[in-house]
Amino acid sequence: MAKQNAFYAQSGGVTAVINASACGVIETARKNNDQIGTVYAGRNGILGALTEELIDTSSISDEEVQQLRHTPGGAFGSCRYKLKDIETHRTQYERLIEVFKAHDIGYFFYNGGNDSADTCLKVAQLAESMNYPLKAVHIPKTVDNDLPVTDNCPGFGSVAKYIAVSTREAAMDIASMSATSTKVFILEVMGRHAGWIAGAGGLAGQKEGEAPHLIIFPEIPFDRATVMARVDDCVKKYGYCVIVISEGARYADGTFLADAGTTDAFGHKQLGGVAPTLAGMVKQDLGYKYHWAVADYLQRSARHLASATDVAQAYAVGEAGVRLALEGKNSVMPTIVRASETPYKWEIGEACLSDIANVEKFMPRDYITPDGFGISQAGRDYLEPLIQGEDYPPYEGGMPRYVELKHQLAEKKLPDFQP
Amino acid sequence: MAKQNAFYAQSGGVTAVINASACGVIETARKNNDQIGTVYAGRNGILGALTEELIDTSSISDEEVQQLRHTPGGAFGSCRYKLKDIETHRTQYERLIEVFKAHDIGYFFYNGGNDSADTCLKVAQLAESMNYPLKAVHIPKTVDNDLPVTDNCPGFGSVAKYIAVSTREAAMDIASMSATSTKVFILEVMGRHAGWIAGAGGLAGQKEGEAPHLIIFPEIPFDRATVMARVDDCVKKYGYCVIVISEGARYADGTFLADAGTTDAFGHKQLGGVAPTLAGMVKQDLGYKYHWAVADYLQRSARHLASATDVAQAYAVGEAGVRLALEGKNSVMPTIVRASETPYKWEIGEACLSDIANVEKFMPRDYITPDGFGISQAGRDYLEPLIQGEDYPPYEGGMPRYVELKHQLAEKKLPDFQP
Repeated sequence: MAKQNAFYAQSGGVTAVINASACGVIETARKNNDQIGTVYAGRNGILGALTEELIDTSSISDEEVQQLRHTPGGAFGSCRYKLKDIETHRTQYERLIEVFKAHDIGYFFYNGGNDSADTCLKVAQLAESMNYPLKAVHIPKTVDNDLPVTDNCPGFGSVAKYIAVSTREAAMDIASMSATSTKVFILEVMGRHAGWIAGAGGLAGQKEGEAPHLIIFPEIPFDRATVMARVDDCVKKYGYCVIVISEGARYADGTFLADAGTTDAFGHKQLGGVAPTLAGMVKQDLGYKYHWAVADYLQRSARHLASATDVAQAYAVGEAGVRLALEGKNSVMPTIVRASETPYKWEIGEACLSDIANVEKFMPRDYITPDGFGISQAGRDYLEPLIQGEDYPPYEGGMPRYVELKHQLAEKKLPDFQP
Repeated sequence: MAKQNAFYAQSGGVTAVINASACGVIETARKNNDQIGTVYAGRNGILGALTEELIDTSSISDEEVQQLRHTPGGAFGSCRYKLKDIETHRTQYERLIEVFKAHDIGYFFYNGGNDSADTCLKVAQLAESMNYPLKAVHIPKTVDNDLPVTDNCPGFGSVAKYIAVSTREAAMDIASMSATSTKVFILEVMGRHAGWIAGAGGLAGQKEGEAPHLIIFPEIPFDRATVMARVDDCVKKYGYCVIVISEGARYADGTFLADAGTTDAFGHKQLGGVAPTLAGMVKQDLGYKYHWAVADYLQRSARHLASATDVAQAYAVGEAGVRLALEGKNSVMPTIVRASETPYKWEIGEACLSDIANVEKFMPRDYITPDGFGISQAGRDYLEPLIQGEDYPPYEGGMPRYVELKHQLAEKKLPDFQP
């Protein structure tokens, strides 16, 4: 097979470890420079391919590439630009192939979640229909942990660790204060459809009575009276109550808490935040003093508290993506396979993109306790291995030393294109 | 001097390192067991003295005491119970002395901020007027960093590090996403009156254009039009805008942002959160997509990211408190003295409580840039040393191993008392 160039792009919300996957891709490509020429990275994700803004990663030193392993955010820029079906967006798909052709790109590595798996598959299909030889490999990444087939998704383990640790620390705070002050603490976490991140909060406690006392999952319909009764019981029994709530918490009819009846009382719904909404209910129904926190971007960019397991897996899927492409695989995604539960062992497998694209994996009901407010032993057994190990970035002057890459663009060869 | 017992209590909002001060007190007392008998800790702070709920720390092993150094929260419980002037609360003050007398307590170590410095002073005065021999020493602690005389306050350095690191990490996230998605990120931080914590966010960036692009201090009156113009400029110039805002941000007339005109539009004011309020303004005036985070308890309990300097200082003031008492000092507080700026060196000094009580130290105007939206070089020079060094807790199974103490109470000797 003649030597060809590669294209790599980051897609959707970034994670604390997506750059570790980029590191895996670039380092492995460099080791195989007899088969792979230049790795181009899309500036701001797939947009960069459409606009022909290709970052020439050969200008990045080996040392800088290595530093990607401990750098959060998306080093090349990501985007929320979604390519729809080929009929609607045929011009865009064709443009991608044109750009690939112009830069002799034979390998397409797309690093993202559900949407990008779908895009990756469609690009592969179009290339095939146009007789353009392309190996398209999707590299999994999502804090939401909702990709099917793979046991878990790179990016999730670090958020899980951050939420578990933060919940435990905040719980120790409120435990100290509750005699005379705050009785209820609410932490809002990401995960609009799937409750994996909320579930990870459950790792903060182990024994009866330990925080979090309630987890509110998007998978379990929210019933105000039931929740408030539980909060009240908890305050009476333990002196305080710690709640981890998913931003996607919703009523039985599917409306989100932050968008529902409470909107009038608590303001413009875009301002939402389910934590203040729930805090309002606590105040109104129970009268307890509360505090609430919304972690937002902090949770998914907290490289300072990354899970070593997650970092290793993120690197491994990047590395495996290149290996699969070099083996001639197309329309595939490296997966993480749980080879053993105790002790936890994982290895890399592979899946067809047609089994991945547009399928969302929710928390199985049996990972949630029967009452709907906690994680079961099965849930704990699943989650616990993913937060194992610490992988601290280097520090300088009290701050983590993260790498910032210069975006050296390859010369354009095509006319401008308006995506 | 005959051997006497000691009483230690934690007061007000806890910090990531207040237990390091407790560790300093108890370890130093144990080293001086020829002069100090039992160290009793107030269960839930000073309340424990009033109710005679004295935790007998001699039941705590040396190893557990050592673990306090890396454990957040308040290990003995804290409280927001404030003793007012002696006239109003004479019964309470007298009760304290009674309890001290009943348990042969000759040393009083009170670990807190402004209010507790005042209480400590009053207890010393009352003891003197009652001819009860007591050495009362205040041990500084406050994330707000607003105590006078001392160069800085234990607890602050770790919050400062947390906010600086979190701001940098979140900024890397939004930088990756801004081309097609979020343009404005807002992080709300603590500090209702003084902008020290907000200022620490400024350590996230160093060069022109680096986040945070705006810091909103409580010391600088908030003007919506000016702020919105800056945000808009920033988005146009850099592609995105990161804002760190103090929960105490206020208008020129003194009303808090979250309590002001915006209240009607955005709901019940207790639900506040200045971040969503500011986000609402961004949406309304500029139409940019935003994200916001409220760190709340997470920032002051984040022992996983403590500043090693802060931990060392917290321990040192605990140790020094005992030393001062043993030297016969009364109504004093150990302080942190900046012995040298470059390289940063600190040592322990002492101050009279009458110079500390009820005085709040704000950010000096010259620590803030002339435009009011950033930290000056003088501010940076002051703040930077305080976040130096990492002091990680030990981990087990992916989670920090924090100690949880059993509260073994000393036998009561007095009739019940209703505080």
